[in-house]
Amino acid sequence: MKLRRMHSDSPAFLAELDALLAFDNGTDASVDAAVTEVLAAVRQRGDAAVLDYTRRFDRLDVGSMAGLEMSRDALHAALDGLPADQRSALDCAAERVRSYHEKQLLESWSYTEQSGTRLGQKVTALDRAGLYVPGGKASYPSSVLMNAIPAKVAGVRELIMVTPTPAGEKNPLVLAAAAIAGVDRVFTIGGAQAVAALAYGTESIPQVDKIVGPGNAYVAEAKRRVFGTVGIDMVAGPSEVLIISDGTGNPDWVAMDLFAQAEHDEVAQSILLCTSASFIEEVADSIARLLPDMPRKDIIAASLANRGALIKVASLDEACEIANRIAPEHLELAIEHAEPWVEKIRHAGAIFVGHSSVESLGDYCAGPNHVLPTMRSARFSSPLGVYDFQKRTSIIHMSSRGAAELAPVAATLAYGEGLQAHAKSAEYRK
Amino acid sequence: MKLRRMHSDSPAFLAELDALLAFDNGTDASVDAAVTEVLAAVRQRGDAAVLDYTRRFDRLDVGSMAGLEMSRDALHAALDGLPADQRSALDCAAERVRSYHEKQLLESWSYTEQSGTRLGQKVTALDRAGLYVPGGKASYPSSVLMNAIPAKVAGVRELIMVTPTPAGEKNPLVLAAAAIAGVDRVFTIGGAQAVAALAYGTESIPQVDKIVGPGNAYVAEAKRRVFGTVGIDMVAGPSEVLIISDGTGNPDWVAMDLFAQAEHDEVAQSILLCTSASFIEEVADSIARLLPDMPRKDIIAASLANRGALIKVASLDEACEIANRIAPEHLELAIEHAEPWVEKIRHAGAIFVGHSSVESLGDYCAGPNHVLPTMRSARFSSPLGVYDFQKRTSIIHMSSRGAAELAPVAATLAYGEGLQAHAKSAEYRK
Repeated sequence: MKLRRMHSDSPAFLAELDALLAFDNGTDASVDAAVTEVLAAVRQRGDAAVLDYTRRFDRLDVGSMAGLEMSRDALHAALDGLPADQRSALDCAAERVRSYHEKQLLESWSYTEQSGTRLGQKVTALDRAGLYVPGGKASYPSSVLMNAIPAKVAGVRELIMVTPTPAGEKNPLVLAAAAIAGVDRVFTIGGAQAVAALAYGTESIPQVDKIVGPGNAYVAEAKRRVFGTVGIDMVAGPSEVLIISDGTGNPDWVAMDLFAQAEHDEVAQSILLCTSASFIEEVADSIARLLPDMPRKDIIAASLANRGALIKVASLDEACEIANRIAPEHLELAIEHAEPWVEKIRHAGAIFVGHSSVESLGDYCAGPNHVLPTMRSARFSSPLGVYDFQKRTSIIHMSSRGAAELAPVAATLAYGEGLQAHAKSAEYRK
Repeated sequence: MKLRRMHSDSPAFLAELDALLAFDNGTDASVDAAVTEVLAAVRQRGDAAVLDYTRRFDRLDVGSMAGLEMSRDALHAALDGLPADQRSALDCAAERVRSYHEKQLLESWSYTEQSGTRLGQKVTALDRAGLYVPGGKASYPSSVLMNAIPAKVAGVRELIMVTPTPAGEKNPLVLAAAAIAGVDRVFTIGGAQAVAALAYGTESIPQVDKIVGPGNAYVAEAKRRVFGTVGIDMVAGPSEVLIISDGTGNPDWVAMDLFAQAEHDEVAQSILLCTSASFIEEVADSIARLLPDMPRKDIIAASLANRGALIKVASLDEACEIANRIAPEHLELAIEHAEPWVEKIRHAGAIFVGHSSVESLGDYCAGPNHVLPTMRSARFSSPLGVYDFQKRTSIIHMSSRGAAELAPVAATLAYGEGLQAHAKSAEYRK
């Protein structure tokens, strides 16, 4: 496998870097048309449409929606059926994720001014959230924990999970994770029809306030389209890792960390920025040596060839500047004394500090969320968190003295904007 | 004018209420096509396309982009040219808005576990934000303050304002507000071309990380389309007020507060929920008496007729439940002892507590933001705030002991998901 080499001192470097990062995350016209039809059908015909599409797309033929809901007992049976090591690993991960996320809880606040006016911000949880969990190869129990636990920590009253079970095939790890995370209801539906059911509500499925969780192109497009009717999390692009290395540490570790990203799929992105040309060669040798033994070697090789790169940089300062330009989803600082470099990073989803801090620990059990901004959106967005399931309401409690003092200010500005009723309604409070 | 009356004890009430709230915020095909063309042209041709569209749509013919940028001196000249009362009203509003928003600043945090592992969340500001300010009738200096001040409080390094000046006509209040709020650069461009320039960058206009601010259908659609490349604030629907009254207070005040919402435009929504049938009649009388003197009486009458309602409810408890269903942008509690009712409200953009707390004070100078979630989106979203210009990065600094302890957990879960490189990369840290 020929891995792309780049050098930051090349005159074309920034153009090459931008080309490497570019990824078309748009949807095609056939997805668009299919989603339009499904959304309209579920909105109009409710359960009947959901049953039809589930029969057609998931080869699952049940007489009524009751046949598509899983009981809490079934979830707990899946949990009880797990091998002991998987059960305790899930418990440990859930406990650490919960503990980290509890620190994210927003609190209401208010303050009282001299006039007696009280101003504040009230924080409340969403009433009801929907969690999409893909079926098939992208069905990850860890994602159930990462999406469900923040919602429950926030205080969401009802958390509804949807997950397709094509031909009735269920993933016991996913169901066990739902039990551990405290998911309230589970429907075995998927695709755009599941998103539509959550967004609009049907006779059997209550309307939610926000839909989170990853999905295929149909799910992503459906989420994009129902945004406004309900909240959504980000529409994610391919997963990415950027590793900054000072040439210390074990090249096998760096190679395997690049593999761990690349094994997700053929468009995942693994990039190394390194100050040492010789260490880059050692990593390349490790890649060549380790790759043949990887069960997912074809996906890894395709991903590295398509979108990977080993980049020689002049200094760690330059590497941090490049990292800020990339705004990677995952950033590993594979640096001997890594801590001081954290403050140079302005844009990243998560920063893994030092040789022991590997992304795969973060993916499962370090505690922070593994749902992170992709495709440079760490410039303006955050990891999924408790704050995504809370919202704020402004509180304005004017004293009569406070209102009288501010009325002329508001009236002056309102007249300036030509809004006389605004002005009058303020002036009444003088 | 015939104002819609409703009664919560009618069997059809909830269906009528849903019909009253329904509003199609979709875009039509011609807007869609125009925006597609403009986005592509600006992306490909940069400044040249911006100059072309500005010539065509804003009848503003300048030779180069320099002719479309306003200097800081020009902004300060606008400020210095204001009448004293407008100047001091803007200063007072800006000071109060700044002071409230400073309380919203998020702080970084971290904690260290027994193993020496440190986990945390680092908060940083966006590098650069864009602020869209409409021209013409919807050009509000108060909106400049409400959008720009949170960005500056957050620590955004560069705040770029765009505002169309058709045929060169400028609004001195808007420019003065930009000067007070500390806007860094101002371009006199508008429409989808301005959104495209901010989202993609051109030779003269730097790419921003997020675009905020209201606009017409073209601007809204352009924002929707560039979302992902940059962050955006919400796409706003018509403005709304819901007033809950216990029959106390002055019916003229209630009528004028309904007018203040209705005068925005013909699709704005003003609704009264009241426990007293006789007070509803008094409000109706006040409306009939006060309306003819309002300069914007035609807009007010159209808005009230289209989308307004006076609704008799059985109790304040019921009114709060209805309010939670509506999730109004603005909620006034026109109740004698209003404070205890605040806790019954789960979903609203802003709550104005008691007879002195009128929305128009909040629109201009109470301190909280006037950019609020519309169309029931207060169920899942928040007022614009400092937090919209900050984002979080997870920090994972594993000690070697911590990594060794968690490696088997991560590996077990990774093998369970079929991700062997994830497992190996964790196991290396044992």
